[in-house]
Amino acid sequence: MINPQYKQMLQHKSIIRELSEYATARASEIGSENVFDFSLGNPSVPCTQHFTDTMIELLHTAEPVALHGYSPSLGIESVRRAVADSLHSRFGVNYESKHIFMTTGAAGAVAHAVRCVTQPGDEVLTFAPFFPEYTPYVNQTGAILKVVPPRTEDFQINFEAFEQMLTDKVAAVLINTPNNPSGVVYSTQTLTALADLLRKKQVEYGHDIFLISDEPYREIVFASVDAPYVASFYDNTLTCYSFSKSLSLPGERIGYVAVNPRATDADLIAVMCGQISRGIGHNCPPSIIQLAVSRVINETSDLSVYETNMNLIYDKLTELGFTVVKPGGTFYIFPKALEEDAGAFCRKALAYDLVLVPADNFGCPGYFRMAYCIDTEKVKRSLPVLERFVREQYGV
Amino acid sequence: MINPQYKQMLQHKSIIRELSEYATARASEIGSENVFDFSLGNPSVPCTQHFTDTMIELLHTAEPVALHGYSPSLGIESVRRAVADSLHSRFGVNYESKHIFMTTGAAGAVAHAVRCVTQPGDEVLTFAPFFPEYTPYVNQTGAILKVVPPRTEDFQINFEAFEQMLTDKVAAVLINTPNNPSGVVYSTQTLTALADLLRKKQVEYGHDIFLISDEPYREIVFASVDAPYVASFYDNTLTCYSFSKSLSLPGERIGYVAVNPRATDADLIAVMCGQISRGIGHNCPPSIIQLAVSRVINETSDLSVYETNMNLIYDKLTELGFTVVKPGGTFYIFPKALEEDAGAFCRKALAYDLVLVPADNFGCPGYFRMAYCIDTEKVKRSLPVLERFVREQYGV
Repeated sequence: MINPQYKQMLQHKSIIRELSEYATARASEIGSENVFDFSLGNPSVPCTQHFTDTMIELLHTAEPVALHGYSPSLGIESVRRAVADSLHSRFGVNYESKHIFMTTGAAGAVAHAVRCVTQPGDEVLTFAPFFPEYTPYVNQTGAILKVVPPRTEDFQINFEAFEQMLTDKVAAVLINTPNNPSGVVYSTQTLTALADLLRKKQVEYGHDIFLISDEPYREIVFASVDAPYVASFYDNTLTCYSFSKSLSLPGERIGYVAVNPRATDADLIAVMCGQISRGIGHNCPPSIIQLAVSRVINETSDLSVYETNMNLIYDKLTELGFTVVKPGGTFYIFPKALEEDAGAFCRKALAYDLVLVPADNFGCPGYFRMAYCIDTEKVKRSLPVLERFVREQYGV
Repeated sequence: MINPQYKQMLQHKSIIRELSEYATARASEIGSENVFDFSLGNPSVPCTQHFTDTMIELLHTAEPVALHGYSPSLGIESVRRAVADSLHSRFGVNYESKHIFMTTGAAGAVAHAVRCVTQPGDEVLTFAPFFPEYTPYVNQTGAILKVVPPRTEDFQINFEAFEQMLTDKVAAVLINTPNNPSGVVYSTQTLTALADLLRKKQVEYGHDIFLISDEPYREIVFASVDAPYVASFYDNTLTCYSFSKSLSLPGERIGYVAVNPRATDADLIAVMCGQISRGIGHNCPPSIIQLAVSRVINETSDLSVYETNMNLIYDKLTELGFTVVKPGGTFYIFPKALEEDAGAFCRKALAYDLVLVPADNFGCPGYFRMAYCIDTEKVKRSLPVLERFVREQYGV
């Protein structure tokens, strides 16, 4: 028989996917230029020409059997070294290649990291608002995801609620900064307090508590925002990274787990990830993509459009009286809806061909997410529509 | 704390990997031309020029945001359709795109297929000799792999033992034809008897028993050997495929699960695989590789060298008096060792710089595997060494 757990999941369709499908269908009716689709977090800027040129050069010059051969299960050694060297030089943490495990994007990284530092039944805490995919990412390992309620005034950490939930059962804490969906970047003050509390509780409970830091938006940080490197604050940190957003390669599935060299069993964790791989069918991320990325490791796409878009939307939202925290990075913004039921709010917006995502699944009911990884020209055209929507529906 | 199950796995190093590492180290001492490394099943022929040209053309002409964008989690629709059409035209099974789930190679395919049709505690049967990675592939899902003893005279199925083990607890049967490590291809007679027995037991137990058919070697079949298409024999078949061997792309991680359209819940299984993906961190196989492979879907590398090598080795082994079944495909051969302890036999061979793999882990003690995916010139040079080894050590 087919597995009833996965069969049942088919009934719970992702609201983001549903809205995105609606937007696509609507676009085929009225033209995609007339649908203001803020539903999907898909990069809108191309990869760099240097990445493309590097791929072409590899295909022209490298010996095909070696180029397309199996990567070692932990990743190609030269690639792991390039990642370690880049992190070391940028953030001052002395990673070596043995601390790096190459993965198929951040999803693959989190899949390995969670399995590495939890056992079935252990709790993993995360903070609302949170990326809804964390629920299957964690729960399918047998560990249990619990969500700390949000601190809505600035979307930093609600430490009071966190400390209450940080019981002896907690094996890991999963954070995401810069954050999807809030766009907020955790401050030095937040990370210091987080690390202090985790250290205190490690001593109190007599066991490690790992910090899994999911950082796909690390390179999308806006002017004058300080984005401290998480692993610098706390030894037991596993940094999960993806090149999906920084190099605009979400489909090519390339990222890594970086194990803080000061973590407990630091020298074992990457090789343990290799064992975990065998059971979840990874084996290795694509070889040619590993090689190409390692040659452009310190570059990013031109990410400036996201800040331009953010400022346009943030200014309009505040002008219209929305409660909204100004994002420090990512390509998301997370305002409070103008009625209690954010689902109803977003449904009304659909009549204006504005596709917004209600945040119930993000652990923050009453809010909605806008993903502004779209052309600036379209963002500009969306603003009068947004204004008309809220004036007509809410008399703002 | 780090997970003790995975930590413990670190102590059980793969014998294949250990031998391969030995061979690499030895090659750096005496030159790789002097080490006859038959340990690793890595394709030795390049991908086609057409594949390389297709990749370059995509990089030159496709719009990068679309080219490198997220694939839908089930795979790119045009790619799924190309796979379905190819299978339909080659094997007469009327797959549609909805029956195809794109994966990161056969490992990814098996990871999804097993989870799809088992629950923790269910049994999965496979047949010795078997690919040792099946153990972590299956057991890490929570299902339990049990191994039916071999039928050593021809390495077809030992039906007597199989029927005894095919209890009500068995949710799936995992086969691999053409087979790693034996090189044997299951005959029409074997597959007919297998399907008949499975159908009988489905009725008797009142539940489905799925056949997971792992077919990475499907295109490596030797002259005058009939390699029947497994799914044609049995409705509840999930075919797991990889382009690793047919197109010599093992590092690029591309394959699929094809669900027999006549299987129970055939229309649900691919979408269920999409749900499973979320928990194991796949999301989608690399986009550019999906697109490139779909454009060369009915091509293979020049695989003829494997048959040339097989014939050379088979003739020498039989001349030297080895008990060995002639392979019908793959790039493996699986002779009986000249003493009971195949480990001891292979250790003695190492003194001649012959790297052979003892088959204890393959569920078939007393045998050894040779992977002849190496240059024919080297195979030819290895034969007198093999002869000297067995004459000096075993007085043959």
